Amino acid sequence: MRLSGFKALVTFIFILGMSSAFAQEMDRIKVVNNNFVKADGQLIVFRGYSTSDPDKLESQGYWNKAYFEEIKKWGANIVRFPIHPPAWSKRGKENYLKLLDQGIKWAGDLGMYVIIDWHSIGNLRTAMYQSDIYDTNLKQTYDFWRTIGVRYGKNPVVAFYELYNEPTTYDNTLGTATWEQWKVLNEEMITIVRANGGEGIPLVAGFNWAYDLTPVKDNPIEAEGIGYVCHPYPQKREAPWEDKWTADWGFVKEKYPVILTEIGFCGPEDPGAHRPVISDETYGEAITNYCDQRNISYVVWVFDQQWAPRLYTDDNYTPSRHGKFFKKKLNSY
Amino acid sequence: MRLSGFKALVTFIFILGMSSAFAQEMDRIKVVNNNFVKADGQLIVFRGYSTSDPDKLESQGYWNKAYFEEIKKWGANIVRFPIHPPAWSKRGKENYLKLLDQGIKWAGDLGMYVIIDWHSIGNLRTAMYQSDIYDTNLKQTYDFWRTIGVRYGKNPVVAFYELYNEPTTYDNTLGTATWEQWKVLNEEMITIVRANGGEGIPLVAGFNWAYDLTPVKDNPIEAEGIGYVCHPYPQKREAPWEDKWTADWGFVKEKYPVILTEIGFCGPEDPGAHRPVISDETYGEAITNYCDQRNISYVVWVFDQQWAPRLYTDDNYTPSRHGKFFKKKLNSY
Amino acid sequence: MRLSGFKALVTFIFILGMSSAFAQEMDRIKVVNNNFVKADGQLIVFRGYSTSDPDKLESQGYWNKAYFEEIKKWGANIVRFPIHPPAWSKRGKENYLKLLDQGIKWAGDLGMYVIIDWHSIGNLRTAMYQSDIYDTNLKQTYDFWRTIGVRYGKNPVVAFYELYNEPTTYDNTLGTATWEQWKVLNEEMITIVRANGGEGIPLVAGFNWAYDLTPVKDNPIEAEGIGYVCHPYPQKREAPWEDKWTADWGFVKEKYPVILTEIGFCGPEDPGAHRPVISDETYGEAITNYCDQRNISYVVWVFDQQWAPRLYTDDNYTPSRHGKFFKKKLNSY
Ligand SMILES: [Mg+2]
Ligand SMILES: [Mg+2]
Ligand SMILES: [Mg+2]
Ligand SMILES: [Mg+2]
Ligand SMILES: [Mg+2]
Repeated sequence: MRLSGFKALVTFIFILGMSSAFAQEMDRIKVVNNNFVKADGQLIVFRGYSTSDPDKLESQGYWNKAYFEEIKKWGANIVRFPIHPPAWSKRGKENYLKLLDQGIKWAGDLGMYVIIDWHSIGNLRTAMYQSDIYDTNLKQTYDFWRTIGVRYGKNPVVAFYELYNEPTTYDNTLGTATWEQWKVLNEEMITIVRANGGEGIPLVAGFNWAYDLTPVKDNPIEAEGIGYVCHPYPQKREAPWEDKWTADWGFVKEKYPVILTEIGFCGPEDPGAHRPVISDETYGEAITNYCDQRNISYVVWVFDQQWAPRLYTDDNYTPSRHGKFFKKKLNSY
Repeated sequence: MRLSGFKALVTFIFILGMSSAFAQEMDRIKVVNNNFVKADGQLIVFRGYSTSDPDKLESQGYWNKAYFEEIKKWGANIVRFPIHPPAWSKRGKENYLKLLDQGIKWAGDLGMYVIIDWHSIGNLRTAMYQSDIYDTNLKQTYDFWRTIGVRYGKNPVVAFYELYNEPTTYDNTLGTATWEQWKVLNEEMITIVRANGGEGIPLVAGFNWAYDLTPVKDNPIEAEGIGYVCHPYPQKREAPWEDKWTADWGFVKEKYPVILTEIGFCGPEDPGAHRPVISDETYGEAITNYCDQRNISYVVWVFDQQWAPRLYTDDNYTPSRHGKFFKKKLNSY
Repeated sequence: MRLSGFKALVTFIFILGMSSAFAQEMDRIKVVNNNFVKADGQLIVFRGYSTSDPDKLESQGYWNKAYFEEIKKWGANIVRFPIHPPAWSKRGKENYLKLLDQGIKWAGDLGMYVIIDWHSIGNLRTAMYQSDIYDTNLKQTYDFWRTIGVRYGKNPVVAFYELYNEPTTYDNTLGTATWEQWKVLNEEMITIVRANGGEGIPLVAGFNWAYDLTPVKDNPIEAEGIGYVCHPYPQKREAPWEDKWTADWGFVKEKYPVILTEIGFCGPEDPGAHRPVISDETYGEAITNYCDQRNISYVVWVFDQQWAPRLYTDDNYTPSRHGKFFKKKLNSY
């Protein structure tokens, strides 16, 4: 079918209107004091979901707009892309960027912000990782943030750069690293992404798989306009959690913005159940209340039917126990 | 043939008896003061042989129990496996480990302990090596010790982790390295192998191809329960050697255990003769007497008919001049 | 044809005579105070041209004696070989060295000295480069200088080792590096090339694409017998240039030898014109006069018909505007 000139024009304006409607909402998010704010200075608290690796989703045929529409239906205003370094290498930088271009477009069109997450686990200083799927090195990591800065630095949809998913020495099995050493590497990454045009907010995590932020008290990252990350899975600490959370990472929110880029739980009966994620809805209530009282943002792991703790169980996005809790919660805001 | 139940049981018990006989002897070796000791605190002095690279031996059809039985006949209570990093890479970690599994089993069954030796020569700090067969880097080296810790950490047969065969700047042709810098790398390797379950004894070498231990006097490695290595080949110093040996490395034995993981000699007429190994039996007498007077352990290089100085000359294990000396000596204890 | 004994002898002596004529001229160049000098202590100022990458020239059929004869005709007493690390990797060390063997022979036979230039642009500390054609790392760089030291260290034709073409953090887009950090890397490279027999003169460049030598004032490289490099392309500063040049790098010549291993210009209309090389003959006059007044050596970029600013436009070596200026100038000394 060929549209007549008039119809085509109308359609074009309609599409343009839709885009600009969202474009208006997609402010450049900034840090003011201990909060994330929109262009008008208004506080914004992020709640959303982490996708699985875009490379995996694309390979399985799920990397499409419908997937993002579903995430939107689940109440998200943000979506996180966990990019595994070997997937980045295997697909090749240029091809992987095409996936990100698509995902960022779909998210932005739906009014959702994006976190780019360099999804490695281990000790970047010694180049030792929890397993081969997290393998990278300083050169590749620096080059990744250069690439992201150049490609998406001016795009307000890409609100956050999560510099390194989960730093850990794994009780020194991955060699040693001090906070001082880790801090220097983060400051270098921040410098690089910003020098390459990155106007988004760098996010910094601490050791113990992004749980421990205690060194921030005396020795914060020397950079303005950043946020701190925590992944407070239920079994990192015994319930009642609140005081421990405050001591371990919650105190940071008194001075800096905090976003929990991974939370979640599953019952012991759920597929893939593993320490430290096994718990129940009491954890869900506790962590979301804790965040709500303090305007702490959070992202739930993981919008996939295979990775654990999964949020849904099939191609119809039927919520898991975990998924039911968060779908309801995020739609309640 | 199918064994009757009774015969099978008897056979099983017999095999079990053989294994446990040796299993009893294979204590976890420990460091007490300046000595290696068995479980009952009794001093043990090691004397044995270095194999050639297990990868080479397997490729040539020599990696079998008969080879280890021959080593045992030559009076050894220890055997050293020199693993060349490129051989480790080429064969692949999993396949190389299978060779080590076999060798450790054969050694243990014969009551011999094992030294795992990361057989590189050069400057690990600058990643420059004496030749390509010694090429490695920090990442691979750390990963090697993680792998060894995980795989053999609880196996008492694997008594020693020789962290790096022969450190040398080769008169700065391989770039510079200070003892301070080298010390830090050793301490990191010790931390890694232990964090990964390694209960064996890490062995640390000094510069000048594992000859010079003088910096240990003022600046020893900061780790308990380790030993020091020296490779005092005859031409490292002019005879008479004793006072020079004491000044260069022997003094270390007053405070710490010492094991000479490579000694040996050959006449100038022997195949592969090269500095610093050319000498005669007077060296053999000198070095073994020096060790015996001080309970210093030693390992003779090399149980192979091609590498130099070779200990035997043919498939019948006919001793070379060098081999005759040490076969007799080790059988004299 | 078989030469009679006499004719063969005459021919041999004639060839020998030609070689030795030049051999006499090819002194080992040394540093005395702030100058380069010949064996008799006489000052020598170098003026010549940079080839394009020998790998490129060979691939296009231009790597031959005629090319060097042409350079000689253009008044050069020195020629510079810019070796791109990926070309070095791709062709393989042994094959690339054969090209250098040839080029050094042709240059030497014509009485021209050679600069070996490790032609990378970027931040060697973070291993981030301006583009992939400059990609290298510390290990490869150290190994390169080891290789050059071993191969050409005693050959007086190879007068200079230009350690690293153009250091730059590119406004931190390539990560950070301080002069202190860069200095340490240069000192390591100097140690390596010399330890491997390199009797030539190491050349050290500063940041801002080898423009800025201001840190040399308070913190010079700790090594004797070296020279400093600058690439003062016209647009690095606004005319009039002289006082700025003195402040930025010319002051160094008061204490140390200086060689501008890249100068040149092209009009905005010339192919490949790009910042910072666009200018005209006034720049040519200014920079050569500046050098002549101070006995500063210089090398013009680039003796190629494709790379910019090109010195000639076709296979007949027809000079470009840029080429006309320098061909005349160099033939005027
Ligand atoms: Mg940790
Ligand atoms: Mg996780
Ligand atoms: Mg040395
Ligand atoms: Mg040796
Ligand atoms: Mg710079």
